[in-house]
Amino acid sequence: MTRPAPFDRADAAPGVVEIRDAVRAGRARPQAAVEACLARIAARDVAVRAFVEVGAEAALAAAGTAPTDGPLAGVPFAVKDVLDVAGLPTRMGSRAGDPRPAARDAGCVGLARLAGAIPLGKTVTAEFAGTQPTPVLNPRATSRTPGGSSSGSAAAVADGMVPLALGTQTGGSVLRPAAFCGIVGFKPSFGLYPVAGMKPAAHSFDTVGILTRSVADAAAAHAALVSDAEAEAAGAPTLGLFASHLQETVEPETQAAFDAALSRLSAAGARIVPVAPPPGFDRITEHRATINAYERARDLAGEWRAARDRLSDETLAVCERGFAIPAADYLAAREAVDAFRERCAGLLSGVDALATPTAPGPAPEGHAWAGDPRLQELWTLLHLPSLSLPMPAGAPAPLGLQLIGPRYRDRALLSTALWAEAALA
Amino acid sequence: MTRPAPFDRADAAPGVVEIRDAVRAGRARPQAAVEACLARIAARDVAVRAFVEVGAEAALAAAGTAPTDGPLAGVPFAVKDVLDVAGLPTRMGSRAGDPRPAARDAGCVGLARLAGAIPLGKTVTAEFAGTQPTPVLNPRATSRTPGGSSSGSAAAVADGMVPLALGTQTGGSVLRPAAFCGIVGFKPSFGLYPVAGMKPAAHSFDTVGILTRSVADAAAAHAALVSDAEAEAAGAPTLGLFASHLQETVEPETQAAFDAALSRLSAAGARIVPVAPPPGFDRITEHRATINAYERARDLAGEWRAARDRLSDETLAVCERGFAIPAADYLAAREAVDAFRERCAGLLSGVDALATPTAPGPAPEGHAWAGDPRLQELWTLLHLPSLSLPMPAGAPAPLGLQLIGPRYRDRALLSTALWAEAALA
Repeated sequence: MTRPAPFDRADAAPGVVEIRDAVRAGRARPQAAVEACLARIAARDVAVRAFVEVGAEAALAAAGTAPTDGPLAGVPFAVKDVLDVAGLPTRMGSRAGDPRPAARDAGCVGLARLAGAIPLGKTVTAEFAGTQPTPVLNPRATSRTPGGSSSGSAAAVADGMVPLALGTQTGGSVLRPAAFCGIVGFKPSFGLYPVAGMKPAAHSFDTVGILTRSVADAAAAHAALVSDAEAEAAGAPTLGLFASHLQETVEPETQAAFDAALSRLSAAGARIVPVAPPPGFDRITEHRATINAYERARDLAGEWRAARDRLSDETLAVCERGFAIPAADYLAAREAVDAFRERCAGLLSGVDALATPTAPGPAPEGHAWAGDPRLQELWTLLHLPSLSLPMPAGAPAPLGLQLIGPRYRDRALLSTALWAEAALA
Repeated sequence: MTRPAPFDRADAAPGVVEIRDAVRAGRARPQAAVEACLARIAARDVAVRAFVEVGAEAALAAAGTAPTDGPLAGVPFAVKDVLDVAGLPTRMGSRAGDPRPAARDAGCVGLARLAGAIPLGKTVTAEFAGTQPTPVLNPRATSRTPGGSSSGSAAAVADGMVPLALGTQTGGSVLRPAAFCGIVGFKPSFGLYPVAGMKPAAHSFDTVGILTRSVADAAAAHAALVSDAEAEAAGAPTLGLFASHLQETVEPETQAAFDAALSRLSAAGARIVPVAPPPGFDRITEHRATINAYERARDLAGEWRAARDRLSDETLAVCERGFAIPAADYLAAREAVDAFRERCAGLLSGVDALATPTAPGPAPEGHAWAGDPRLQELWTLLHLPSLSLPMPAGAPAPLGLQLIGPRYRDRALLSTALWAEAALA
């Protein structure tokens, strides 16, 4: 057998399903995909700055021993630098991170490897997966932020350096950068992917997520991580048009693009029904802020005590705010959010998914602000699976359509998103 | 000021509140408490084998700089070896653990230090906080298991080597060893204490908990960890007598001791009302087993892939079982347990706490089996706070009374337990 090299393209590394199918069919070796990605990284990352560290030698070695029959056979992937990859340090975007290589893979990284995937390196994260800006380039809108906190993972995928990256979402840290960079971001129901080897940010919300260029690629990665069959495109779905208290934050051009996208989905057969938020829903953003600050401070208590001089002013401020929150306020917020989780199950009972813009507008200009997380964080908080896919009218910069599914119906949400992606194409 | 040494006792190190009050009042220095504990450890741990490692020098140094006005001022504590303590390795009871010292404290360890407490060392854990037996001695019943998986933490407290230890509970790993060793074990509502720096076992259940010799000591530690006021003894409570499908596992002598304890509480003024389990509750143990195995395998995916030859046969078997569980079974179990969490809120609406025996009997003879976790794990699974305190009739070995409170009413549960402890004294 001659060694095929089907992935020799200048524009972008091949996709998850493309690589996997080629490797499983014996048409390509995992090394070919790794080499294609490394070449793209070498050519592009000087400009994009998505990677903290690339483990090229380890990746090539891993490609030689990775299983070639798994659901992610031969798929190179990048890992947000709050998740452990054996042999590489986990710096967490912080000067207080541990410079020594991690001894073991995080659970999600281990699962991806067991499925045949090959980690190429660590991507830039905002400090402790927070809200600080990073110097990562948005490959699809170079004057604008790529979003955060999974900025490196989103940029690496959007630029075609890897077909798959892992991120984490505590507020909107997977879906917002996906939307800003014109790719697909998927956050599963809370707790579906393992959290071992992940640095917690706010443990009631932290969720490992997936960044890819297509919904099918996200569906393949999700199936591998949870040991499920891969989602297939569903029939035309019922979509709930959900207007929360944050509706007024949406910019007119983004609203117009969203309305146009919904019209196309409707024309393709989707039934669109209005869904109203439950009473008191407008207070949920405030409850989230309380829980987030309380938990962030305490999950960082080790760094706060021993390495305070190496924390940014922003992280110091979050910790100070969080430590000052009394238990009673935190518990009241937890209780209120629990109640909303129960009520929001009913919210989704008559629809396949809710639809909203992923963010109020395109990526903000410049790198001073990574964008507004509020439209994404609602669903992280409610523990519901959510996905962002690009809307067609993405000029002058990409815009995302957010779909939210019922809890634990992650595969069904991916099926709906496959249908929507095709209908918008 | 002459240096007082009020803690110079041969039988046991002083308690949390005793030390804290003495240090805050200037009657003792933190070093005195640390020295008392180190002396006891030096005298006793050859026999008890509770500690994996004692950081004596670091503890004495920390005692010199620890805040002397905090809610845990000068309190030495021990830490289960699945939680990071800066400067000591986290071996997780496994040959696959990382032998290098941890760079940072776990969140809960950092919070305890910020409150003035001083970590003395790491205590023996079952491998990855699982069900394997350990060689730790039960100081209160030397022919019997101390329980697990927080066996070292329970034995260290029961033997008077430290007044406070941190453990973790995924099934019954704090309350069962507390009951078997004749001390107090407290597990808060899910997610109240930070999880950063804790090795996850099964992330939907993992909860950091507290082991002490008295309820007041547990209340002091809890208050410090959540920034709350300390619980005070409540008036006579209403207790729910809860007989689940596991009632038949309770041994007659243990049932008799439990009945006698309830009679004493009733005589002291408690109202005792029967509380029936919701329909279908008997399936909850099976759902728990599914979630536990699925998550344990995946939270260990890094070790499974790269260090399989260093995992015990028991851990290998759990992983094999867990990896074979399809996503649909896992999700169905998660959904069923979510529904029980909602229903069990109602279960507790008319009572201050439910009461059950902590375990079906005293600690089993020998060290081959760390005991039955099913009576404790129900409440871990349901995310409710639970506490074990010693029952009076603890011959031939200690027995625990388990009290379970409404979610987020952790302080109220501690108040009820303070009342019960006094009533049983």
